[in-house]
Amino acid sequence: MGEHAAIAALTANLKAVGDDCAVLPMDATYDMVLTSDPLIENVHFTAEATPEQIGHKAVCRVLSDFAAMGAEPQYLLINVVAPPEQNFQTLEKIYEGISKVRKRFDVDLVGGDLAQGPALELHVFGVGRVPKGTALLRSGAKPGDLIYVTGPLGGAQKSGKHLAFEPRLEWGNALRESGLVTSMMDISDGLATDLRHILKASNVGAEIFSEQIPKNGTLEEALYDGEDFELLFTGPDIGKENPAATQWLGKITDRPEELLLDGAPLAGKAFEHFRS
Amino acid sequence: MGEHAAIAALTANLKAVGDDCAVLPMDATYDMVLTSDPLIENVHFTAEATPEQIGHKAVCRVLSDFAAMGAEPQYLLINVVAPPEQNFQTLEKIYEGISKVRKRFDVDLVGGDLAQGPALELHVFGVGRVPKGTALLRSGAKPGDLIYVTGPLGGAQKSGKHLAFEPRLEWGNALRESGLVTSMMDISDGLATDLRHILKASNVGAEIFSEQIPKNGTLEEALYDGEDFELLFTGPDIGKENPAATQWLGKITDRPEELLLDGAPLAGKAFEHFRS
Repeated sequence: MGEHAAIAALTANLKAVGDDCAVLPMDATYDMVLTSDPLIENVHFTAEATPEQIGHKAVCRVLSDFAAMGAEPQYLLINVVAPPEQNFQTLEKIYEGISKVRKRFDVDLVGGDLAQGPALELHVFGVGRVPKGTALLRSGAKPGDLIYVTGPLGGAQKSGKHLAFEPRLEWGNALRESGLVTSMMDISDGLATDLRHILKASNVGAEIFSEQIPKNGTLEEALYDGEDFELLFTGPDIGKENPAATQWLGKITDRPEELLLDGAPLAGKAFEHFRS
Repeated sequence: MGEHAAIAALTANLKAVGDDCAVLPMDATYDMVLTSDPLIENVHFTAEATPEQIGHKAVCRVLSDFAAMGAEPQYLLINVVAPPEQNFQTLEKIYEGISKVRKRFDVDLVGGDLAQGPALELHVFGVGRVPKGTALLRSGAKPGDLIYVTGPLGGAQKSGKHLAFEPRLEWGNALRESGLVTSMMDISDGLATDLRHILKASNVGAEIFSEQIPKNGTLEEALYDGEDFELLFTGPDIGKENPAATQWLGKITDRPEELLLDGAPLAGKAFEHFRS
């Protein structure tokens, strides 16, 4: 059973699951936006990552979730787990990486814990807000919408982008403010997998075109590699009005969950963190 | 370097650190209250704990943090880390334990993640609220205040209380509403250690009396065992007005950080999760 199936089975009684963040009522002006992401040694990073990169990636994964909703991150709490023999200087440098990126995006670190465990892990929890009723969900794509992505895809593991990516907070906010976007998410598991989440949530299909997908390497990499953390979104033809929109790469159709590449069905090939 | 020193060194630039939860401005009526707690195999529980107890304890540690501020928990996010070979039925039972206790206290589970890692871990993040400006902190104890605890202390590991304790949310709320309490926290590291946190934050001292400490076993256990998750608080002599108040066990003095037991200095002996 893969990660998504296991989470679905275990969280059948949850509210608001399925988007990058949970969106909850706060007051008359704002909705509250909540998310959490783990970063685990030998799963999300290896010994090649520098301590600063580990801190950067842990925080930026959460910031990217906020970007994907068009939301503003405000507060972070971070649980750090480290083996008893963990070098203290390494921990300090991880916190420096955290500190640098949270300051740049004006997010306060307000709590967390440091505990002993068998591997190095960071669990980052984020709290933010979005003007009431305006969060961009996965569920709003409509037949006829075009499909966009904020940057070229593929090879993020090979190139090191997965450790150094920039969360697309400004673009996420601008896209929400444009009022044109019908659905949005960030690309963590690859275009082919993540687009299917939008199709399922919106009960629509899509046809994408290999020549129009912005790529860092091969088509295969652009379709199936994960961890680009670019924004994937749908909406009408917004042309040159929005700086975040690269060339559109496909169209939403009215055939639920059917995904075509250049007219032929596209095989699924998801990267899953958890298999049992 | 122990847990508290390491956290202090690493979080020197944080705001609002030191209390059981971070308290942050939300709107004109409420402050936002945030906390996180890890629960790690072979650190916070062993193979003797049932899966339901693991889920219960993970959530109740966080609920106890809210109780300690007199705050109301609203939302939880839970990151679960499990080895690839983890039995799926065990995970289901952990979620059942989570579900049972969060429903009883009317708290919504709104998100989280399931990831692969070397040991079983639960990272619980909690979001709640408290009427603006009324959160009970560690820093308000005044010379002449009496010291109270909501229940007998010691032996929580031996008795299994550490897996089955009830978070004192009702009493925390009632104590806040009484307007009489000057400082409060929950007892996770033992009376001797946790009282010192109040003394430090409030810049006061204390004298406690062995005969008046409510005990489950020996005096030594009542002073130094952790994980009772009772509320420790200070205030004037509230006598029989408050159901949460057992007999007072000591008095706050004007001698900063001096802790006396029956007139003699009390040795420190903290349980620390993290040593390097």
